[in-house]
Amino acid sequence: MTRWPLPEYMQIALAQAKEAADSGEVPIGAVVVKEGRPIATGRNGPRERCDPTSHAEIEAIREAARVLGNERLEGCELWVTLEPCAMCAGAIVHARIARLYYGASDPKGGAVEHGARVFEQEQCLHRPEVYSGIGETESAELLRGFFRERR
Amino acid sequence: MTRWPLPEYMQIALAQAKEAADSGEVPIGAVVVKEGRPIATGRNGPRERCDPTSHAEIEAIREAARVLGNERLEGCELWVTLEPCAMCAGAIVHARIARLYYGASDPKGGAVEHGARVFEQEQCLHRPEVYSGIGETESAELLRGFFRERR
Repeated sequence: MTRWPLPEYMQIALAQAKEAADSGEVPIGAVVVKEGRPIATGRNGPRERCDPTSHAEIEAIREAARVLGNERLEGCELWVTLEPCAMCAGAIVHARIARLYYGASDPKGGAVEHGARVFEQEQCLHRPEVYSGIGETESAELLRGFFRERR
Repeated sequence: MTRWPLPEYMQIALAQAKEAADSGEVPIGAVVVKEGRPIATGRNGPRERCDPTSHAEIEAIREAARVLGNERLEGCELWVTLEPCAMCAGAIVHARIARLYYGASDPKGGAVEHGARVFEQEQCLHRPEVYSGIGETESAELLRGFFRERR
């Protein structure tokens, strides 16, 4: 049996997640894609960067905005290995991300299909298209392995 | 009649908001206070910084974490002129802010007493004490003046 290959962008996000784990950070990775081209990557790094906002999505969004010289990432996609939290979902709205693709869902901290459900709020000014479950097995296995080693 | 003076920290946050307006940014300001001492300020600046995450709270929290050399701002207070949005409320949770004081409430974008109500979610890992309505007149007047000039 041949397993259907993961989309290239989720592979990039997963590679970022692995890099986070190698640095002792919770393995979550992200990439911003514009017109089929990856323009910025990010990985979770709050401890080493002494920055509680240093989530993969925030890092990738901030880098993409620097690269484009624009706070609005119109027409951009964000690929991330885990369902974004409320902070990151809010940042996705502010950045006007057009499409969000994520791997594993996160009942504990996610705010897309759980908890605060940021994009479903009536006041939400911008709603990205959302696609989930891409590389969820790989993403979840990275997280489980990380926490298993630390127990 | 003598109007009760605003707490010093809200005055600092309002001064930051005025600085934002002077730079052409929506006037919102914040300050992080630890043991009675202001340790970091922040103001809204997404346009000039090309950073959609550059809200007053995020800037103040990131600077405070740098100053303390710790991603967790245990025992710290955050004073901000406007009700935080979902992104900033999420950052307040991640930073473990002990007490949140804000000025005007924000039915359009706020996520504390409106919309996503981030701190009220069952999954919320850390809930700050919240005090609102401090300097709300001054804060709202700054915002109204800013948008009036731009119409």
